[in-house]
Amino acid sequence: MSIRIGIVGYGNLGKGVELAALQNKDTELVAVYTRRDPAAVKPLSGVPVYDVAELEHHQDRIDVLILCGGSATDLPVQTPKYAAMYHVVDSFDTHAHIPDHFKAVDQAARMSGHVALISCGWDPGMFSLNRVYAESILPEGQTYTFWGKGVSQGHSDAIRRIEGVRDARQYTIPIESALEAVRSGSNPELTTRQKHLRECFVVPQEGADLERIEREIVTMPNYFDEYDTIVHFITEEELLRDHAKLPHGGFVIRGGSTGVNGENHHVVEYHLTLDSNPEFTSSILVAYARAVHRLAMTGATGCKTVLDIPPAFLSPKSGEELRRSLL
Amino acid sequence: MSIRIGIVGYGNLGKGVELAALQNKDTELVAVYTRRDPAAVKPLSGVPVYDVAELEHHQDRIDVLILCGGSATDLPVQTPKYAAMYHVVDSFDTHAHIPDHFKAVDQAARMSGHVALISCGWDPGMFSLNRVYAESILPEGQTYTFWGKGVSQGHSDAIRRIEGVRDARQYTIPIESALEAVRSGSNPELTTRQKHLRECFVVPQEGADLERIEREIVTMPNYFDEYDTIVHFITEEELLRDHAKLPHGGFVIRGGSTGVNGENHHVVEYHLTLDSNPEFTSSILVAYARAVHRLAMTGATGCKTVLDIPPAFLSPKSGEELRRSLL
Repeated sequence: MSIRIGIVGYGNLGKGVELAALQNKDTELVAVYTRRDPAAVKPLSGVPVYDVAELEHHQDRIDVLILCGGSATDLPVQTPKYAAMYHVVDSFDTHAHIPDHFKAVDQAARMSGHVALISCGWDPGMFSLNRVYAESILPEGQTYTFWGKGVSQGHSDAIRRIEGVRDARQYTIPIESALEAVRSGSNPELTTRQKHLRECFVVPQEGADLERIEREIVTMPNYFDEYDTIVHFITEEELLRDHAKLPHGGFVIRGGSTGVNGENHHVVEYHLTLDSNPEFTSSILVAYARAVHRLAMTGATGCKTVLDIPPAFLSPKSGEELRRSLL
Repeated sequence: MSIRIGIVGYGNLGKGVELAALQNKDTELVAVYTRRDPAAVKPLSGVPVYDVAELEHHQDRIDVLILCGGSATDLPVQTPKYAAMYHVVDSFDTHAHIPDHFKAVDQAARMSGHVALISCGWDPGMFSLNRVYAESILPEGQTYTFWGKGVSQGHSDAIRRIEGVRDARQYTIPIESALEAVRSGSNPELTTRQKHLRECFVVPQEGADLERIEREIVTMPNYFDEYDTIVHFITEEELLRDHAKLPHGGFVIRGGSTGVNGENHHVVEYHLTLDSNPEFTSSILVAYARAVHRLAMTGATGCKTVLDIPPAFLSPKSGEELRRSLL
């Protein structure tokens, strides 16, 4: 029996979930749900597309609903709403608002007897797991998270809002010397500027004042002012040719000490290098949809995060097979 | 209320557990149990030492017993025996015999209502977790495990058994070009010889035939014949001065593909660099003793592995605190 998956929202993430559900032998994509005109949405796999309103009536068709909306305005409304009807997975990634989101989703899921997994992906998600494992094992130490090299959509958008900018792509780049210092086990104090570099590829409008655009980027509060920022002006052709993909990745590194006098140093490093941020995130969402399905079958209810899920639940293999082949 | 820990066996691993239990604020080391003369064992922390026979009567003093014996002969007997009396954690690491060990321990733990976590450490252990997470997320791909640079006790022992050898230390070293090929995402086929190098530091007895010793090492079946092996002859002083520590580490790397035609490649890498193999392993055992204690309080029984344990159970922090600070 396959795990029947429904997708809400067919953007980059929804398309990635579709591909991941096809790639896994024990999952079956049943339908895509959209707030747009369903006739205008054409899934690659040809599955039916419905208006989200139909979700009121499709409970018997779907085991787990994967919510592929944005964290700013979609998920705070959608996840509690659909957790009252389905087992759900979301990728809510506004770290500061996770406690509030958890509370709202937990109430809806508990009252209706569903399992709702929030904040799934790689950060929050796999990076969170690695922070918790490493800190639990090495209580005396320091954890560092680096992001990149990869495209930050938020920073790219911020550049696009500057007058005279037609399009832009911003890469967040971890600084190699900072990585090396952390890997050495010296647990250095690092400023924002020492950890990451920001590189921007900007397509200006014709006749725009390039000096002003560059100044507005590098001095932009919160987004760029605390970083060393490199700005390149390029043509639209170059942007499409060289910067069409959405690569990303990063590092979680913990240095810690053990011994009678803390004389032994240990470094735990987790490193992702991703050609496609949305496709990797979607692959995580589908593995956790499997876990949610299993957890629901144990009778669990309420809001969960990746920290609450036994790793074996993510795998299609049985416990016996895992112990034999992967332990 | 602290988690009360007992240690069975006071070798390198037992000493590491003692240090880790002291380092964690919510664990308390209660006693060491030994098969030797208890008067001859002097724990660093001054905790009492008892004959293992006393374990028949100490159930009310101890929450979790950490078994620090060897996998060859100690744990196959000890873990089922003590799982019938206590919640236990062991570091059974003979991969091929894990299914049998699981079965014996599961029966003892279930019948007596205890939780028994086996095969805890970094491989099996943290490496297993990373193999399962990465394979579950990227079902189409290839996983590679590399060990080192580090001291292999088994290989060092094998050299010591050669006639004319007084002492020896063997380092397992991952080959950089193999690591680079794997990190490139090309999912190469690698032979045993291409993955690891073996470097041996040998103290010969006076007048021993060095050429014969070297030949016996490099041609030793299973241990060395399939590897490129470098042999250095050194003095006992040099061995004590330069090779007294037990460093280790390694890599779990999975390369996998997603996309319509598998066009997007992703690499997930987990990397440990450890000054002290036994102290890092012990630190993992203590974090999982915390998890076993919590799991037992939920009413669970039977044999478990790290794959069955929700990550949050390893941390002294509450779910709320983890969601706020580490998710």
